[in-house]
Amino acid sequence: METTSRPLDALNSSRGKRVLVDLKNQKQVIGKLKAFDIHINVVLEESEERVGGELTRKLGTVFIRGDTIVTISPAN
Amino acid sequence: METTSRPLDALNSSRGKRVLVDLKNQKQVIGKLKAFDIHINVVLEESEERVGGELTRKLGTVFIRGDTIVTISPAN
Amino acid sequence: METTSRPLDALNSSRGKRVLVDLKNQKQVIGKLKAFDIHINVVLEESEERVGGELTRKLGTVFIRGDTIVTISPAN
Amino acid sequence: METTSRPLDALNSSRGKRVLVDLKNQKQVIGKLKAFDIHINVVLEESEERVGGELTRKLGTVFIRGDTIVTISPAN
Amino acid sequence: METTSRPLDALNSSRGKRVLVDLKNQKQVIGKLKAFDIHINVVLEESEERVGGELTRKLGTVFIRGDTIVTISPAN
Amino acid sequence: METTSRPLDALNSSRGKRVLVDLKNQKQVIGKLKAFDIHINVVLEESEERVGGELTRKLGTVFIRGDTIVTISPAN
Amino acid sequence: METTSRPLDALNSSRGKRVLVDLKNQKQVIGKLKAFDIHINVVLEESEERVGGELTRKLGTVFIRGDTIVTISPAN
Repeated sequence: METTSRPLDALNSSRGKRVLVDLKNQKQVIGKLKAFDIHINVVLEESEERVGGELTRKLGTVFIRGDTIVTISPAN
Repeated sequence: METTSRPLDALNSSRGKRVLVDLKNQKQVIGKLKAFDIHINVVLEESEERVGGELTRKLGTVFIRGDTIVTISPAN
Repeated sequence: METTSRPLDALNSSRGKRVLVDLKNQKQVIGKLKAFDIHINVVLEESEERVGGELTRKLGTVFIRGDTIVTISPAN
Repeated sequence: METTSRPLDALNSSRGKRVLVDLKNQKQVIGKLKAFDIHINVVLEESEERVGGELTRKLGTVFIRGDTIVTISPAN
Repeated sequence: METTSRPLDALNSSRGKRVLVDLKNQKQVIGKLKAFDIHINVVLEESEERVGGELTRKLGTVFIRGDTIVTISPAN
Repeated sequence: METTSRPLDALNSSRGKRVLVDLKNQKQVIGKLKAFDIHINVVLEESEERVGGELTRKLGTVFIRGDTIVTISPAN
Repeated sequence: METTSRPLDALNSSRGKRVLVDLKNQKQVIGKLKAFDIHINVVLEESEERVGGELTRKLGTVFIRGDTIVTISPAN
């Protein structure tokens, strides 16, 4: 019954959905998960940056380097 | 009599149970351990973020990058 | 229909276009994406550095070490 | 006469004994050394966290990510 | 027409020319690019250190460890 | 006449002797060098911790994770 | 005419000479370069530590872990 047992499988099931990426620099990037790799480098589309809950920038299609990421969760 | 001798075996025995993940950024994420890999990337389900003991966010299914993690222990 | 599924493919489609590179040291470098590799080392041409939105230096052709990069997004 | 010449051999001889783990974040975790691997990921049982010498949390069976560890020494 | 497509190719074309190396510790080293490798370890000749735009030290032939480097750009 | 040309050879010649290990966290550990490996993980015996020149703790046989070490030198 | 094209070749030509090693922790170690490896772990002989230009310690034969090093240059 356990169908998703590896972390990247869980990320894969978020592909095409809007996710919230928390960065080590305290910022957040929200957008549609387009791509990721084993380093957790990710690409989000139609993305925007938020700081302290406030929209700070429209980023469009953004590449985020994996080693700057803390968490990736669904954007509500 | 020693049946669990590697750290990942210990993590594996927590699969499906609620765990408390302490992060380097001083935050905690609590949720059901769904998946992990050798980098200690983990996925928690029905998770929430806590800061200083206070619930700060419902995160749902969250991917946590391994290099941001300090400890993983049972959530009581 | 999904033609770009890996992060480096997304970077590749920005080759020759102007991009905004956010660095871990809070600075930004803006320029034309000339080259990148799997470490996300990048080279920008006709580039300039900005701090807090202000132009601080003309850099020309700049090599940026990958591990100093947070995000790469289109420069508007 | 030199029977323990590699660092992991020394760790191995502490298996099953109570150890004191000093973390980079200034906290300490004390518990029985259950398991470790080449990354120095460790698992302690019946463990507790101390900060500035004071007991701050009972952790039970805790997984500690190796890259957060400074030293491991016998708990007296 | 695209003849330089990898970042190290761009560095290679700066060999023998004066470059400005920005370090993570906020200092700059300026000198003639003598050598580099895939870790971006570099050697500069006739080099000097600058802090806040001021010459602080003559360094001569200096080896710079790659992981301390942010950017390498032409010295004007 | 040059008999020791690699750094680990130099460490090896300190095996069994008292050494002073300077850590990135500003602390020092002094003890007899029992073991080390290529990551510069080291084990010291009959060791003690010093901060600002003052003895702060007796550590006994201590495992020190290599990536926390700055220098290793003879203890006088 | 270009005889030294790799950074480690340049280091090699400093073997046996006095060098100045700048560390990430703002300290300097000065001594005769005895040995180094590909991680830029180095061993200096007859070395001393300086902070802010002042001699702070005689270190003798010191092992310096490569990842703590910023630059290595000739000691004048």
